[in-house]
Amino acid sequence: VADRPGESVTSRAFAVLSAFTPERPVLGLVEIAGRTGLPRSTVHRLLGELVAAGAIERGQDRRYRIGLRLWELGALAPRGQGLGEAAAPFLEDIHAATGQNALLGVLDGTDTVYVERLSGRRAVPIRITVGSRLPLHATGAGLALLAFSPFPLRQQVLAGELDRFTPRTVVDPAELRRVLADVRKRGYAVSDRQVERLGMSVAAPVFDRNGLLAAVSVVMPTGPDPDRFAPVVVAASRGLSRVLGAPPRNPPSKFR
Amino acid sequence: VADRPGESVTSRAFAVLSAFTPERPVLGLVEIAGRTGLPRSTVHRLLGELVAAGAIERGQDRRYRIGLRLWELGALAPRGQGLGEAAAPFLEDIHAATGQNALLGVLDGTDTVYVERLSGRRAVPIRITVGSRLPLHATGAGLALLAFSPFPLRQQVLAGELDRFTPRTVVDPAELRRVLADVRKRGYAVSDRQVERLGMSVAAPVFDRNGLLAAVSVVMPTGPDPDRFAPVVVAASRGLSRVLGAPPRNPPSKFR
Repeated sequence: VADRPGESVTSRAFAVLSAFTPERPVLGLVEIAGRTGLPRSTVHRLLGELVAAGAIERGQDRRYRIGLRLWELGALAPRGQGLGEAAAPFLEDIHAATGQNALLGVLDGTDTVYVERLSGRRAVPIRITVGSRLPLHATGAGLALLAFSPFPLRQQVLAGELDRFTPRTVVDPAELRRVLADVRKRGYAVSDRQVERLGMSVAAPVFDRNGLLAAVSVVMPTGPDPDRFAPVVVAASRGLSRVLGAPPRNPPSKFR
Repeated sequence: VADRPGESVTSRAFAVLSAFTPERPVLGLVEIAGRTGLPRSTVHRLLGELVAAGAIERGQDRRYRIGLRLWELGALAPRGQGLGEAAAPFLEDIHAATGQNALLGVLDGTDTVYVERLSGRRAVPIRITVGSRLPLHATGAGLALLAFSPFPLRQQVLAGELDRFTPRTVVDPAELRRVLADVRKRGYAVSDRQVERLGMSVAAPVFDRNGLLAAVSVVMPTGPDPDRFAPVVVAASRGLSRVLGAPPRNPPSKFR
């Protein structure tokens, strides 16, 4: 089997790297070939090159995992590590004030990628970890991002597949459009049992000098009044936006 | 100028990625060509492929930085993110007990790569951040790693260049050998003004089921008695080792 034409070696190397996921962080050669659709001989050669570069490591079990060198390079991503570090004090403030999980999610395509999480020992365990990627229409952070995102991205998401995670996930485009208008009016988003049956989150958008960048959220078990966490989340998102050089924004109409 | 023979495309793509450093996280094409020694045409093509893969992002300033996708892949490295998450509660304990910076450094080649740092608001600012890479012979974490590393690695470091960071850095191989024997006897390492003129650290090794893996350290301004922090660092390193599946170890002779 020949290598597929029209694909660069770089794209095939990243196809091999992308075979690794949070659910499957350790893989064998045959699994990688299966997941990438590349011939085993190609995968074998690429793995050798990626191991030589430190991007992949081979364990004593002879299986492959992402290498420390790739982690080290990834730590240089301004929208990853650097943003997480800028956000950490504000997430600490949210955690100190609420005792709940505080997260920062970055807008990437039509997903939220979570780049920082502060849980501490008091918070209830949640499934979202650093590196988790979730679609925009269900989580608090995703709804906050989607509501404040440019019109073409909103149109793209509303026209696409809206996966149902729970019976309460909003999957009707017209209803989602109304939800997003409400998020813009209030300045924060609430996701109540729309991702997990017993989970809830409240989130607000974060801007830098170029516009929408991320969302701060607090994630906790379902409770009676999510709105009580809105002020602390909105304040933290504004503080982080200011640190990131965003121009001042008017408060949402609800607060005026 | 032709591409250099005998080098894989993958290795050249990683040469481009490796042009980005903590000191220079944003680069232009000409700078990348200069830092890699690759022809501009090659760099231009590789940058296009890396941007397509999400490994590199181009900002509104037209310059390049490491992309969120590379950060996301790097977060899957078991010796990076995963280890940092396992260590976080133990670093929290050190910080809660001392008010100082608590760090986790992983052994990589002849360097320590710091994969987790817990500073909080009480700790004095330090220069080492997540992603920092420092040689083994000067820092507390590095000395703890070097002391407990296999003989061939110790020989390699002792036979190599020992950079002087301050007048107190141990750069004489015979003296360093004595220091390492002392670290093994006591079970922890002290670096007192050997990296920065006003800084000090105390560190202890972390093991998993396969052997030496990392070191836990507390980093603080120079003070009168570094040894007072040794018990908390040793206890945290043993707790983390146990969580990582290391077989039980005898306490160092000093404690017996």
